[in-house]
Amino acid sequence: MNPLTPPAHNDQPIAWLNQASDSEANEWLHGIYEHSPWVAQAALQHRPFRSLAHLKWALCDSVTRASHAQQLALVKAHPVLAAKPATGLTCESRQEQQLAGLWQSTTDQAAELQQLNATYLAHFGWPFIIAVRGPRGSGLSPEAILTELRRRMTHAPAHEFHECLRQIHRIAETRLNEKCQSQPRLGSEVWDWHEWLAQFSDPGFKEHGQLSISYLTAAHQACAQTIALGMKACGFDEVHIDDVGNVVGRYHAQNIDAPCLLTGSHYDTVRNGGKYDGRLGILVPMACVRELARQHKRLNIGLEVVAFAEEEGQRYKATFLASSALVGTFDKAWLDQQDANGISMRTAMTSAGLDPRRISRIQRDPQRYVGFIEVHIEQGPVLHSMHLPLGIVTSINGSVRYLVKITGTASHAGTSPMNQRQDAVAAFAQWAVEVEQRAKQDGDSVATIGMLNVPQGSVNVVPGACHFSLDMRAPNDAQRDAMAHDILQRLHDICAERGVQCELEETVRASAAPSDAQLQRRWEHAVTQLGLPIHRMPSGAGHDAMKLHQVMPQAMLFVRGENQGISHNPLECTTADDMQLAIDAFSLFINDF
Amino acid sequence: MNPLTPPAHNDQPIAWLNQASDSEANEWLHGIYEHSPWVAQAALQHRPFRSLAHLKWALCDSVTRASHAQQLALVKAHPVLAAKPATGLTCESRQEQQLAGLWQSTTDQAAELQQLNATYLAHFGWPFIIAVRGPRGSGLSPEAILTELRRRMTHAPAHEFHECLRQIHRIAETRLNEKCQSQPRLGSEVWDWHEWLAQFSDPGFKEHGQLSISYLTAAHQACAQTIALGMKACGFDEVHIDDVGNVVGRYHAQNIDAPCLLTGSHYDTVRNGGKYDGRLGILVPMACVRELARQHKRLNIGLEVVAFAEEEGQRYKATFLASSALVGTFDKAWLDQQDANGISMRTAMTSAGLDPRRISRIQRDPQRYVGFIEVHIEQGPVLHSMHLPLGIVTSINGSVRYLVKITGTASHAGTSPMNQRQDAVAAFAQWAVEVEQRAKQDGDSVATIGMLNVPQGSVNVVPGACHFSLDMRAPNDAQRDAMAHDILQRLHDICAERGVQCELEETVRASAAPSDAQLQRRWEHAVTQLGLPIHRMPSGAGHDAMKLHQVMPQAMLFVRGENQGISHNPLECTTADDMQLAIDAFSLFINDF
Repeated sequence: MNPLTPPAHNDQPIAWLNQASDSEANEWLHGIYEHSPWVAQAALQHRPFRSLAHLKWALCDSVTRASHAQQLALVKAHPVLAAKPATGLTCESRQEQQLAGLWQSTTDQAAELQQLNATYLAHFGWPFIIAVRGPRGSGLSPEAILTELRRRMTHAPAHEFHECLRQIHRIAETRLNEKCQSQPRLGSEVWDWHEWLAQFSDPGFKEHGQLSISYLTAAHQACAQTIALGMKACGFDEVHIDDVGNVVGRYHAQNIDAPCLLTGSHYDTVRNGGKYDGRLGILVPMACVRELARQHKRLNIGLEVVAFAEEEGQRYKATFLASSALVGTFDKAWLDQQDANGISMRTAMTSAGLDPRRISRIQRDPQRYVGFIEVHIEQGPVLHSMHLPLGIVTSINGSVRYLVKITGTASHAGTSPMNQRQDAVAAFAQWAVEVEQRAKQDGDSVATIGMLNVPQGSVNVVPGACHFSLDMRAPNDAQRDAMAHDILQRLHDICAERGVQCELEETVRASAAPSDAQLQRRWEHAVTQLGLPIHRMPSGAGHDAMKLHQVMPQAMLFVRGENQGISHNPLECTTADDMQLAIDAFSLFINDF
Repeated sequence: MNPLTPPAHNDQPIAWLNQASDSEANEWLHGIYEHSPWVAQAALQHRPFRSLAHLKWALCDSVTRASHAQQLALVKAHPVLAAKPATGLTCESRQEQQLAGLWQSTTDQAAELQQLNATYLAHFGWPFIIAVRGPRGSGLSPEAILTELRRRMTHAPAHEFHECLRQIHRIAETRLNEKCQSQPRLGSEVWDWHEWLAQFSDPGFKEHGQLSISYLTAAHQACAQTIALGMKACGFDEVHIDDVGNVVGRYHAQNIDAPCLLTGSHYDTVRNGGKYDGRLGILVPMACVRELARQHKRLNIGLEVVAFAEEEGQRYKATFLASSALVGTFDKAWLDQQDANGISMRTAMTSAGLDPRRISRIQRDPQRYVGFIEVHIEQGPVLHSMHLPLGIVTSINGSVRYLVKITGTASHAGTSPMNQRQDAVAAFAQWAVEVEQRAKQDGDSVATIGMLNVPQGSVNVVPGACHFSLDMRAPNDAQRDAMAHDILQRLHDICAERGVQCELEETVRASAAPSDAQLQRRWEHAVTQLGLPIHRMPSGAGHDAMKLHQVMPQAMLFVRGENQGISHNPLECTTADDMQLAIDAFSLFINDF
């Protein structure tokens, strides 16, 4: 099929492609995007490609810029997934479906696949598309494919269409990897480390195949031990578990007195959470240290990797307690907090062999550090929608939260004329529309009404009350406060106009943590070296970096999440290729000092 | 004070007023509206007054047409309610506060009154005003006044301002009654009958002073027995309790074979309900029959009063079972329904001495009836806001109800940009604003979102689901269906635009029951004869008349409710004066055949 096969070495294909004629290049890229040579043609405008990652992005960009009709044609050009050898498959599709083990489906699975394919096609108007090699590249089982098919059937059409395009790009990625003999070796290893760590899970979750690691449970301690053993195996010079349960590994600089770069993230999870939230920021640096140690290479800075014991605030209301200990803001009153079973944090700590009296010793001297960096899965849809594997964090958003009660007058739904109501829901709705508009106005602010309830509402009663939450975030405090001012002002105005009352309780106010300009530039430089375009974005979620920000400069790198970036959910996912890029970026970052 | 006292007979003062000079008339009306002679001046433009009720309405109308500044001055002209003789009271206020027993308050009550008065004044900017003679005209206890003051403190200012005006009109009404020596004798008696009947209440409610009468409980049966005894005492010719528990009283026509007018309403209540919902439509006809019997007067039509045993659908899901038996649509499958304690309707009936096998015999032959009329408390704010005691029902609204689920995609509130959300609440809010607008457009349609919930919503999660109810009603089915079409179309459009799904379940669809033109005209004629303006209005609530509508012409009369017309609530209330007018209207109606 491809007579012009470029040399085997995996740096070479891109060099070859950059100097090839258009027709040679088109022919070489033929088959990467099923029956759709226009994708490659447009992508070639981006030559010279700086890397395979750049080529992949250029191909995505070509599809993104195409018309919806072209995109739909691309989706429809893909074959229906079959449980047995079908005719009309490209050799790429044939090989992939075979490798995925799909042709070893049971009779029942084959029948269900056929039936679901037909339902899907009838519903959406295009065939179900999935990268059967999966996020690690090693194949999905027939059952896993069927589960995805069932799940994706429930998507909104626009959402599912975008998911199909993402799967097409992922298929193209695995095809290009093979063609270039360029496999994400470290990314796949780090992928497997996440799987290994995810085998530990708290009782009540593990039995259902769910992941939950709450602070200082047996599973939590097993995670810590595993990470500590892993750090030792990677070749860290010092490894210990501190008195809040953080696992700390240090890899010394060439000069032992050189300042240190602090990095890391958390290993606890939410209930029924994802495998990558937090852990990616521990395991990526560990992989880099292992490569350094294997090469007996020392950097100009020391590297200190902290696997934080607690970030999610699940067991105790002491979110970020682990990073708080490093910045010296661990509140001793937290020790008396009790979990749902009445076990105090102090008891939990001593039972785990930790000594709460020594927590103050965990505090770091910021003078000894050049700063803190954190790699984290995005937990949002931005990179996924842009078909970009990495994003540069500009700021961890400041937030403010309220619980609000609108009180109107309950009255008979049939007998209260529309102009004589004090309808709490009508007031809410009028205002909620403006909340959305106001947040959109900023471009990068967000406002969310996540909880909403008419207490004891009845179908035939004009609602006399409406209770809800309001969460507002923006990349800096001034922008957040301006938005909050406008939104709350409108709430008061609308309530006054409608003769209803409102009552607010502010429950959270957290300052924004802008990235340190210099550290952020280092991330940008690393990403540019990988050949990828820079995308700067705020972090809407809070992270350990927010705590470290209180005492030292910080900057974060985001890694794309699959499934529209869903997080705090078992569907949270990223690919071995994206992990590889994160590792590569981290290596470039630390080598740059 | 009033040297020009008109003659004592209570028809005469109005005749006198109609021919009095402006200055005589103004002087006579002086003091009715505290320190505000302009109220009387404007009202006198309505002369000649057709009745005392007409004069009262004209005075209300004068206030309604005044500017807000004038209304506020009127409210502020009233004295602060004092627990002991205060200076500066008009003689009317002095006498009322004394009669109300307010000056016999305990020291604690007096202190609380003083403190609450001050808080109220500071909050609203005007003094707390209450007709201390109460809805019956016989006075409120200090504790009852304090309870009202505490409750009304929570009102929205616009709402409370209107309540003060209503109280001022009520004060004026009792002053005019005294001045004209015109007391609502029958209205007060019927008021007391409601109190008597309300002493029966189901266990679990009675202990808390709450009213609840569910189908065939011991208290329910005691009500039926009481009504039956009452009917006999009133002089009905035949009284019996039928096999669904309806109490039926017949007062024969002059000619025993003459057709019959059917009337009545229900004696069951909702849980913790009001005393007047349903019962007013039983007791008003009973009072009229008693007057006829006392006068040994026979009409040209027979009168059949039915106290329906069940209308609220509280114990069994068989709303209107009692009137269904009259129209022949009692569903025998209902007999197997079980209540919350597992007692079937059949068992409940036989335990109460009823024979379910004979229910079919309850069915009436429509040929024998000229129609069905029903007097009912409005259960809405319309008459209250218009300061009108009686309203003419044009139609019992047709209704349709839905339960709706919007399904978007739950995502992280911090990390999901505003333009990449499938936010179920945002879609809901955009649509709910349009629901209100569309219902308002018709003038007499209503649409209500009474239940609303984000299932398992979190403050930091973009809501992936929003569940709610939608209740729509209009005076005729075509209007209801046009509104429902537009509203549901917008729901689908908005969901499609936003890439979220919606799912609807229609739970109720009831046809409108327009009033019979001839019977409605008879009500209008009666109300006109009382000197009151006609206000035609749909009934937003369902009533027994809706069932009877299936087999014979029907028309209803509404009586104003106090407290903004609140119903299904212990605050449901009407005055002895309004009851008197309902009795007078009913008498005129039946005498007119």
